[in-house]
Amino acid sequence: MVTTQRNGQRDRVPPHPDVRGISLQQVLEAVVDPVRRRIVAELDAAAEDLACGTIDLPVSKSTATHHFHVLREAGLIRQYYVGTSRMNALRREEFEEAFPGLLGALRVERERGRARPPAAQPGPPPA
Amino acid sequence: MVTTQRNGQRDRVPPHPDVRGISLQQVLEAVVDPVRRRIVAELDAAAEDLACGTIDLPVSKSTATHHFHVLREAGLIRQYYVGTSRMNALRREEFEEAFPGLLGALRVERERGRARPPAAQPGPPPA
Repeated sequence: MVTTQRNGQRDRVPPHPDVRGISLQQVLEAVVDPVRRRIVAELDAAAEDLACGTIDLPVSKSTATHHFHVLREAGLIRQYYVGTSRMNALRREEFEEAFPGLLGALRVERERGRARPPAAQPGPPPA
Repeated sequence: MVTTQRNGQRDRVPPHPDVRGISLQQVLEAVVDPVRRRIVAELDAAAEDLACGTIDLPVSKSTATHHFHVLREAGLIRQYYVGTSRMNALRREEFEEAFPGLLGALRVERERGRARPPAAQPGPPPA
């Protein structure tokens, strides 16, 4: 776990890049991966920040951690801790300012019904 | 050279896919390549369709042909012949309808001045 010092506060996640310094190339390399697009889509659809563990992904935990890392480095998400939960927030406004229209363009998958629903629905109670 | 028959006319380019049947995944895999993005940017900036040979690309002719093929298969460009010149047209309206906002999002590179200028400028006359 990386510990950095910022503004006199202890912070358990690495610093986040300035979105304005990120290239379109890096962003496209991030979102060309369907698992990473699913993370973005779920954060985009959610009304709140989501803990890593609450986003259902078809990959191992370590692979998921890698995908979150790539999205953070590409300026798409901000990560922070609440207790032991690593939370994820879409950097919607900053990203929209740097790459206008791109987040909206990614929504076509959800609108076409190809992506997963935005939040896991509780299943029926066990019989 | 592929020759297909369509509407009773001989056509020297393969049929073009319906953009509405193309996945966002395929489109992103097409535009994640910077050479292919340059082709799209030059067609987007040009006021007319462009022959393959008029778009200056830092790759061999056969590699360029491959890139045009990928863009055609991803629904981004339409190709046709005028004499012996293979012309390229951005499928702007169809693509915008299927993937709203995506072409606009790609323009950030040109607006930031990272991409090449839309058309080659004539150099100074030789001394």
